[in-house]
Amino acid sequence: MSFRVSVIPGDGVGPEVFFASKKILSKLVESYGLKIEFIEVEAGDAALAKYGEALPKQTLKIIDSSDMILKGPVGESAMDVVVRLRQMYDMYANIRPAKSLPGVQNKFGNVDVLIVRENTEDLYKGYEHELGEDVAVALKVISAKASMRIANVALEYAKRRRGKVTCVHKANVMRVTDGLFAKSCRSVLKGKVEYNEMYVDAAAANLVRDPNMFDVIVTTNMYGDILSDEASQIAGSLGLAPSSNIGDRKSLFEPVHGAAFDIAGKGVVNPTAFLLSIGMMLERMYELSKEPKYLEASQSLNKSIYQVYSEGKKITADVGGSAKLSEMIDEIYYKLT
Amino acid sequence: MSFRVSVIPGDGVGPEVFFASKKILSKLVESYGLKIEFIEVEAGDAALAKYGEALPKQTLKIIDSSDMILKGPVGESAMDVVVRLRQMYDMYANIRPAKSLPGVQNKFGNVDVLIVRENTEDLYKGYEHELGEDVAVALKVISAKASMRIANVALEYAKRRRGKVTCVHKANVMRVTDGLFAKSCRSVLKGKVEYNEMYVDAAAANLVRDPNMFDVIVTTNMYGDILSDEASQIAGSLGLAPSSNIGDRKSLFEPVHGAAFDIAGKGVVNPTAFLLSIGMMLERMYELSKEPKYLEASQSLNKSIYQVYSEGKKITADVGGSAKLSEMIDEIYYKLT
Ligand SMILES: CC(C)[C@H](C(=O)O)[C@@H](O)C(=O)O
Ligand SMILES: CC(C)[C@H](C(=O)O)[C@@H](O)C(=O)O
Repeated sequence: MSFRVSVIPGDGVGPEVFFASKKILSKLVESYGLKIEFIEVEAGDAALAKYGEALPKQTLKIIDSSDMILKGPVGESAMDVVVRLRQMYDMYANIRPAKSLPGVQNKFGNVDVLIVRENTEDLYKGYEHELGEDVAVALKVISAKASMRIANVALEYAKRRRGKVTCVHKANVMRVTDGLFAKSCRSVLKGKVEYNEMYVDAAAANLVRDPNMFDVIVTTNMYGDILSDEASQIAGSLGLAPSSNIGDRKSLFEPVHGAAFDIAGKGVVNPTAFLLSIGMMLERMYELSKEPKYLEASQSLNKSIYQVYSEGKKITADVGGSAKLSEMIDEIYYKLT
Repeated sequence: MSFRVSVIPGDGVGPEVFFASKKILSKLVESYGLKIEFIEVEAGDAALAKYGEALPKQTLKIIDSSDMILKGPVGESAMDVVVRLRQMYDMYANIRPAKSLPGVQNKFGNVDVLIVRENTEDLYKGYEHELGEDVAVALKVISAKASMRIANVALEYAKRRRGKVTCVHKANVMRVTDGLFAKSCRSVLKGKVEYNEMYVDAAAANLVRDPNMFDVIVTTNMYGDILSDEASQIAGSLGLAPSSNIGDRKSLFEPVHGAAFDIAGKGVVNPTAFLLSIGMMLERMYELSKEPKYLEASQSLNKSIYQVYSEGKKITADVGGSAKLSEMIDEIYYKLT
């Protein structure tokens, strides 16, 4: 099976990370005989300035004919790029691992929590209106269909992990909407895995108290946004967290962190989140194709990254090292098998 | 000035904490010549079971003629008690200090952040509907009036603290509603204090990364619910966090923690959050009356609590001690000046 991947280098640190990562991509493609075609497209703040649209028509046309999207961070126009793409292509499952890397100091030991975030509805629908000058309203939308669909994704991940799912909601206050989400999750998950429910405020505290009480967390779009940033920081650093946005026909892979304009262009950014996102992309290619080479390539990449962290010599400043972006990339590159 | 206080002992551990705390209240009233009348009322799960209403009519009648409400934790009916009271009496400012106590281990050193949570609108309005069987919607409501009002509260607190306010929202996604909240905060706060804005997901991560980058956080109801639980756990424990709900005509004081049914009736619960809430109540009485005795009583109570923690001998199991509820209460009682 072959894959067509649209690449959005993005804004801020995005382009330099992508361009530095190219040699890693090429080596993986070559060593494992992967059939991937990469096509660079423009989207984000720079595209908005240039074309008046954060997601220009010519970009959408290419994305439309692609199987996957590999995306760097985008600046202030992120909503118009990534939230739009998620909904446009019904990429309903936002998968966010919060997993510690060897040698990266954190206060919580070895953390390994997976957040499965519903990715198409909730307040992210964008149904918002002013009512006069002084009042504004937004619609939170929850459907049984989308809730059961995301619960099923959580189920699949839990089976491959520690077999536990926590459904996070706030049905004590939002009895109808979050109530529907909870009921849907319960109907899919109860009896199939170790299942419990937790209010979102309690979950935010419990992630701090004892993150590994969680295995898989399944939650709505908005809570997932907040809890996944919190969890990845607890695992070590928001700057290291990858993510995937999975749909039946298309999927998108991106670091969770933002464009980091303050360090852009200096060649000091940490490429880990982007590279781990490539790892998730290769894994998805394996799921779809069942061809082991994609899985092997993904494992080779992840292993190299972990090795570089274990050795701790060629890592960037944000994780306590002094390597530049290019040095860290080279080190990972040399370790690829 | 004299005050009439309705006391809701609440569910779970609520009643035992209140009954044990009575001797402290009596001593403060006597030593400082406070003019407070306490009237016990029923509300919560037990009231629901008994009268078919979590907030029975006779309770509301007494609350209606009271100046303040001192409330223990309530079980599953919390929404019908506390959210209803907040809205009914327009208690618009939910003040939630996340402050470390001496000797209470946490991973973050000495934390001191104040969360000022808008308390009357957002998704908490309770405007929710099913649309057919499979879809449900809830309305998030944000007004300029309520947003500016809460920003002004944050301003007052910041002036007495480190002079910094962070407005937390998600206006990159909810441009209209959170946009209105942000604009309102900006108009009140910018130029008057050190002011910045942060997306709620970034704030959830930054609380973990470096909590003391924050002084006062002002935010909407829903984000405030989540971030205040997270912050209090970061400061030490959710179980220790007090809060006040301030309105122009009435206010309510309550621990942030829940009913903790699992340890109820065992006499081992930690009374700190309830006692610190009493401290906040006495402070509010001072603000309203300008009579120093209320402030002195509040300071005496807080000082006693801090002393008991500093000594670390008579503290409950949840904070690493072995004292029973009654022993910890007695120790605080003896230290009162
Ligand atoms: C940039 C923003 C629109 C986005 C979101 O809120 O989903 C981001 O925070 C994320 O989590 O991917
Ligand atoms: C019990 C619940 C309704 C309440 C809330 O969500 O406001 C609680 O979590 C709180 O923070 O006081």
